[in-house]
Amino acid sequence: MALRVGVVGGGQLARMMIAPAVELGVELRVLAEQPGMAAALAATAVGDYRDADTVLAFAREVDVLTFDHEHVPQEVLALLVEEGVAVRPGPGALRFAQDKLAMRARMDELGMPQPEWAAVTSAAGLQEFLDAHDGAAVVKTPRGGYDGKGVRVVRSATEAEDWFATLAEDARGGALLVEELVDFRRELAQQVARRPSGEVRSYPVVETVQRDGVCAEVVAPAPHSPERLDEVAAAIGVGIAEGLDVTGMLAVELFETTDERVLVNELAMRPHNSGHWTQDGAVTSQFEQHLRAVLDLPLGDPSPRAAWSVMVNILGGPQNASIDERFASAMAEHPSAKIHTYGKEPRPGRKVGHVNVTGDDLDDIAYEARAAAEHFGD
Amino acid sequence: MALRVGVVGGGQLARMMIAPAVELGVELRVLAEQPGMAAALAATAVGDYRDADTVLAFAREVDVLTFDHEHVPQEVLALLVEEGVAVRPGPGALRFAQDKLAMRARMDELGMPQPEWAAVTSAAGLQEFLDAHDGAAVVKTPRGGYDGKGVRVVRSATEAEDWFATLAEDARGGALLVEELVDFRRELAQQVARRPSGEVRSYPVVETVQRDGVCAEVVAPAPHSPERLDEVAAAIGVGIAEGLDVTGMLAVELFETTDERVLVNELAMRPHNSGHWTQDGAVTSQFEQHLRAVLDLPLGDPSPRAAWSVMVNILGGPQNASIDERFASAMAEHPSAKIHTYGKEPRPGRKVGHVNVTGDDLDDIAYEARAAAEHFGD
Repeated sequence: MALRVGVVGGGQLARMMIAPAVELGVELRVLAEQPGMAAALAATAVGDYRDADTVLAFAREVDVLTFDHEHVPQEVLALLVEEGVAVRPGPGALRFAQDKLAMRARMDELGMPQPEWAAVTSAAGLQEFLDAHDGAAVVKTPRGGYDGKGVRVVRSATEAEDWFATLAEDARGGALLVEELVDFRRELAQQVARRPSGEVRSYPVVETVQRDGVCAEVVAPAPHSPERLDEVAAAIGVGIAEGLDVTGMLAVELFETTDERVLVNELAMRPHNSGHWTQDGAVTSQFEQHLRAVLDLPLGDPSPRAAWSVMVNILGGPQNASIDERFASAMAEHPSAKIHTYGKEPRPGRKVGHVNVTGDDLDDIAYEARAAAEHFGD
Repeated sequence: MALRVGVVGGGQLARMMIAPAVELGVELRVLAEQPGMAAALAATAVGDYRDADTVLAFAREVDVLTFDHEHVPQEVLALLVEEGVAVRPGPGALRFAQDKLAMRARMDELGMPQPEWAAVTSAAGLQEFLDAHDGAAVVKTPRGGYDGKGVRVVRSATEAEDWFATLAEDARGGALLVEELVDFRRELAQQVARRPSGEVRSYPVVETVQRDGVCAEVVAPAPHSPERLDEVAAAIGVGIAEGLDVTGMLAVELFETTDERVLVNELAMRPHNSGHWTQDGAVTSQFEQHLRAVLDLPLGDPSPRAAWSVMVNILGGPQNASIDERFASAMAEHPSAKIHTYGKEPRPGRKVGHVNVTGDDLDDIAYEARAAAEHFGD
């Protein structure tokens, strides 16, 4: 009988685990939020991931449970562990991907380089932080934010008034995270895979280009890197994976500052948009690696297959046509482009697919990837 | 709505179309012979491919119909075409993959280099051919043979007596195919993709190593090739694809003779074992290319991703263990190996998976691929 991996969440990350699961011969089962999601082909259950009984019933039919997202509540995770389910990553690690305040505190404990930060519970507290940091800062809701949601650059405490009002209504109390506005040259991401028995493998550090808070492009490896960047970034990734006992894929979003420091921005404990290039550009894709890691199988070679890979997201998609109507022109003009789409309806700003191109000349492949992705635009 | 490709047959070739279908965003539907087959994940129907109503009902729900094997009867194919189903490859092409006598005659008409051959209906006719060819020949049943089945090397007409007896009982009459026993140095395979609107793309010619009539290994591209082999093989592949109006993937099995001629051995009009290396070793795998070709989409780049790729079949599999019990040792020792298994129960001689390795040093990757595959042995 095949090894069975259960994935909570039916989005594109679960979908992209299907290909390596089928190739290896691993049975992938998905608990989707609703029918017809991106990972529908592998969905064996539909239900609410916040409901302990639903998740537990799903988990009993698999060898190991993993995730398409980090939103399963700690109470549910704790129950799963109590019931003997192999949850990877475990609740103790996931906590730091769920709560940005807990993450910042833990990074300090681990001695990881990061922006200056504070937990603030009032406009006065925020204003104090602003005054101490040249009048600008980034305010984040500790939970539930992604793709730029729950993140605001502020220059006055009044700009976060609504969030403080919400906090005041929350019986659990709580605080907002405020961070210095880092003067960064660019954003990077470091991916690391770690399995329960301890083996760790690092992917090359990549450059990520964000637009409107959403990942638009990734270049692997990060070009024009200062000396030892690879080493420094990998050490951060491995240090966090080990320090937080992460199992599966870990993505560490990083800032490269104008004075060439590398600072931890955010964490994701699952396959990540910054690693989609690995599907076509690395010996072992992040999706295969995640399956191997959560199954506690030996990890695959994370080496690049070629000098350069570029990934360009398809954001929004055609608004008055279906995505596959654009295949013909994109494929005709870009035979080297690897086109990935997620079976999602086009909607402004939505991630509906991406294009990977791999090769020896960075300018060429970046052009090809961007031009191919443009065929799927409006 | 996604483009829908229907595949008749639920074996490993249909299974291996799942990954590129999911990645591109094409809906793959499979008509499987029975539940639990290799392509079960994508099976939307189970039924007999010889039954016209079954196949027609399945075909009505897809945009284009293609195949995991060549065994769908011509009567069924003709009905499908009559009913307006896009059948790719079409019956007129498939006929030459179903009937080796028709294929030989057509190759002659196209001027393709091939072994000397004859249609024989009696032991006397076979003996005549043997006498004219140094007393040795290959006898083949025109239909239903694969992986060495239905093929015999004979040195006396009596060695095919049972087949002639079967012929005599067949009301349709018929004949056996007899071919000269070619003095070949090695076997090669040429793959070509062709879409209905005419575009053709050739993969590099590869060397195939057979054991007991079954493909054991493939090296891509074919090493130590005489000058212009690539060109000659590609011209044969393209000539056959165009001459027979093949749509989808075509594999031409070839002999390279000791006097450096290239002769057509057999044809397959579907993805083929000689092209499994393309999953990890080519920009566009044969499975993605097949989907693109049958959908009449522009074809992808068939270029190799690296200097060399080696594919080693996993034949039989562990007889007293499950395949996935061998993952740990194989993966630990061979992190660069791409392991593919088909969800099939191990059985002596059965193709249950394969291993691909791609890289710059042929000796190294051949060693890695063989050694990794051996972990799945008895």
